[in-house]
Amino acid sequence: MCPSCEPAAAANGNGASNGASNGANGSAKGKDANHDGFTAIESKVHKNVSPYQPVGDFLSNVSSFKIIESTLREGEQFANAFFDTAKKIEIAKALDDFGVDYIELTSPAASEQSRADCEAICKLGLKAKILTHIRCNMSDARLAVQTGVDGVDVVIGTSSYLMEHSHGKDMTYITNTAIEVINFVKSHNIEIRFSSEDSFRSSLVDLLSIYSTVDKIGVNRVGIADTVGCASPRQVYDLVRTLRGVVSCDIETHFHNDTGCAIANAYCALEAGATHVDTSVLGIGERNGITPLGGLMARMIAADRDYVISKYKLHKLKDLEDLVAQAVEVNIPFNNPVTGFCAFTHKAGIHAKAILNNPSTYEIINPSDFGLSRYVHFASRLTGWNAIKSRASQLNIEMTDEQYKQVTQKIKALADIRPIAIDDADSIIRAFHLGIKTGKEVELLPNMTAEEKALLAEKEASVTGKRALDEITEPAAKKVNNGA
Amino acid sequence: MCPSCEPAAAANGNGASNGASNGANGSAKGKDANHDGFTAIESKVHKNVSPYQPVGDFLSNVSSFKIIESTLREGEQFANAFFDTAKKIEIAKALDDFGVDYIELTSPAASEQSRADCEAICKLGLKAKILTHIRCNMSDARLAVQTGVDGVDVVIGTSSYLMEHSHGKDMTYITNTAIEVINFVKSHNIEIRFSSEDSFRSSLVDLLSIYSTVDKIGVNRVGIADTVGCASPRQVYDLVRTLRGVVSCDIETHFHNDTGCAIANAYCALEAGATHVDTSVLGIGERNGITPLGGLMARMIAADRDYVISKYKLHKLKDLEDLVAQAVEVNIPFNNPVTGFCAFTHKAGIHAKAILNNPSTYEIINPSDFGLSRYVHFASRLTGWNAIKSRASQLNIEMTDEQYKQVTQKIKALADIRPIAIDDADSIIRAFHLGIKTGKEVELLPNMTAEEKALLAEKEASVTGKRALDEITEPAAKKVNNGA
Repeated sequence: MCPSCEPAAAANGNGASNGASNGANGSAKGKDANHDGFTAIESKVHKNVSPYQPVGDFLSNVSSFKIIESTLREGEQFANAFFDTAKKIEIAKALDDFGVDYIELTSPAASEQSRADCEAICKLGLKAKILTHIRCNMSDARLAVQTGVDGVDVVIGTSSYLMEHSHGKDMTYITNTAIEVINFVKSHNIEIRFSSEDSFRSSLVDLLSIYSTVDKIGVNRVGIADTVGCASPRQVYDLVRTLRGVVSCDIETHFHNDTGCAIANAYCALEAGATHVDTSVLGIGERNGITPLGGLMARMIAADRDYVISKYKLHKLKDLEDLVAQAVEVNIPFNNPVTGFCAFTHKAGIHAKAILNNPSTYEIINPSDFGLSRYVHFASRLTGWNAIKSRASQLNIEMTDEQYKQVTQKIKALADIRPIAIDDADSIIRAFHLGIKTGKEVELLPNMTAEEKALLAEKEASVTGKRALDEITEPAAKKVNNGA
Repeated sequence: MCPSCEPAAAANGNGASNGASNGANGSAKGKDANHDGFTAIESKVHKNVSPYQPVGDFLSNVSSFKIIESTLREGEQFANAFFDTAKKIEIAKALDDFGVDYIELTSPAASEQSRADCEAICKLGLKAKILTHIRCNMSDARLAVQTGVDGVDVVIGTSSYLMEHSHGKDMTYITNTAIEVINFVKSHNIEIRFSSEDSFRSSLVDLLSIYSTVDKIGVNRVGIADTVGCASPRQVYDLVRTLRGVVSCDIETHFHNDTGCAIANAYCALEAGATHVDTSVLGIGERNGITPLGGLMARMIAADRDYVISKYKLHKLKDLEDLVAQAVEVNIPFNNPVTGFCAFTHKAGIHAKAILNNPSTYEIINPSDFGLSRYVHFASRLTGWNAIKSRASQLNIEMTDEQYKQVTQKIKALADIRPIAIDDADSIIRAFHLGIKTGKEVELLPNMTAEEKALLAEKEASVTGKRALDEITEPAAKKVNNGA
């Protein structure tokens, strides 16, 4: 069977049969005409597979992936990164504590300090294995094996671009050098990974040829690297799946984020049989970086929560990101997965209502898994009376639903005039409630200008009843009952 | 033929044959044993397709997609968003000028001001079509058609979560209401889109059933919405591809970014036959938002530069993002695609050398397409002599390669001691060059402390020759020539 086909086939099967049942799959039949025997054969085999469940694939390592954390290698290539020895050690310890499988360090050939730092981190005795990342040549390899690392990640450019404009060597030279370097590193009984660079713009024949050669001489991992960030998810799936059929060693993957696909590409690589994913904290690296550790955690916990939670200390993610963000002097992006300031903030009334009933309605990730909490935003023109009702109960204020709807209308009207703070909304709720209890007209906000009061009165007058307060209004229901 | 299979099949075909040629595809054969007749059949058909070219798919709209820009709807649901009328109009005009096909606005049912703003924007006479986004009920629909919009986007939750915890209605009620609302909107001769909410957690049978029903009664678009951000790229491809076989109308897609896949999912949806993608500037929206306009541009220009450049004013992207970022009081994320401050910064020596020879080596996107420029970072311990040589030429300084390597070593040594500014690197280059010309020992940096000078001397002494300055060193080459 074809893993790529499986879900599409099943879906197409359901789709066709279902389409038939309501007589609207003319175009489906049109498509299938170009699609010889595909629906017929496959839908019989997989009639129960559905496309919106994680794809159950005999190649998939989605539930058994390992992380090679490269904040101290790729991350050091980030424009703002300057890690002194103490900071590198602090970051290495934090990564180890978080639970990453490998920590990759800058080549000892990069500078004298890089070599000394590499040795220092190897001496820390961390649980994580320590790797260093070198060019495919013997002088770098000799330096690397002297540092005390658990393994060496070797890379060389294989794209026509890099062969012509970077190192200027051909595939024969690359292969011979690779064999020499690999045998040298293996002779020191440490792990060796051989990776191409810019894999997605390299000749497929060249790639498979050199990978199968280094696999035969016993590398621990081969690496696929989207060095320029050009790959798309299905291209990644296809290339990794092909490679999975050619080598028996582990497959490491490295994705740059120039076109925003680094997390998705890593996920598809794991689906296709890759075993290791390179990450960096906040994704820092050359240009706009690589697959971010936190973003990958978000993707993987949605796919296999048990595996991710059993392996990584997710509640330490925010501290880890803050540590690195401060070290390279950047802010956590406002829209960062999981730790972005609004990652678990719900605003629209229709969202807030459902979230209050059951967070799963609008959350695929439970913030408490990361030691974070959810926030329902109720002080805006988009709020709904369910959010206000829940806020009132937090303030120990009880009213009827009709009264909640009235005070919500006042809050929405005020939000139309100017941005309102949570305090403003709370004041209005309290004042409105006081007014009901005392039976007197109470000023909703003490700090309102005469102009604002006039505008507010105008707004309220212009608002037609309970509009926007009910999720489904009556008229629609009625007309349906009247038949149409 | 099966579009999902196409590249994998081809790749597997090449892979297998190539594997055979170097006798290492035992495991490939092993895999293919589980994969009945797949390689044999497909590789004959597609022997020339390669997996790292964009997938040529008869379903794909990668070269003909349209954008529904939702900064003024989804974006208004961002925690920090409060757009007054003037700001909404400014943003709408900027989006129209950029070239988006549609601009989607908050429901007129949300608040009185929302209704008034919707009418105001409809009166602007923009090239882009104006849409408003409403719940699937008649009272919202009546308000919508009175605003003067070109079309209405209708949405209703179809997942078991939303049916139970949000609106509490069943599929029969949803279908009847949908038919009534759609016929009502169509009777006003404006566009109508019907979308499910949380599509990837809805029953496939329910989805295909209601989509084929609304397709029959003539909606312009059906919508797939990953409301919770749970979908992965191959799930998206499979569901959209299935839907493409069931409906004949356009397919709009909406992806949240909770697990960092919003751009990739949009791309895979287009590959599967979707026609429209929802975006917002910087991706602002509920929680951490949706597919960002700029990130999608980066993804699409890498896939079809001609189409993207012909349609959108890319050089206005940065101003557009700055406008919205200021309006919602956030910073442009440091790692934002294209406009992030380091998106086109190259640091490692090996990268810098190649970039200077040919930018395509490490750039899939040409910054000048966006009116931006590239920066090669040379003031760090990771720099290489090629970067220093290029900087020297910018300073009109000529030296021999050996001299460039010497001064580079001094810059790397200084960078080991403390972060160095571009000015520092420039001073060193100038001082070193002056020293050569005058034949005198010149102080490299005027502002160095005695302690720093001592450290620097120590560093330089400890550095062994030209290490890290050549991309491929001689010893490796020699030993290969000696045969091994």
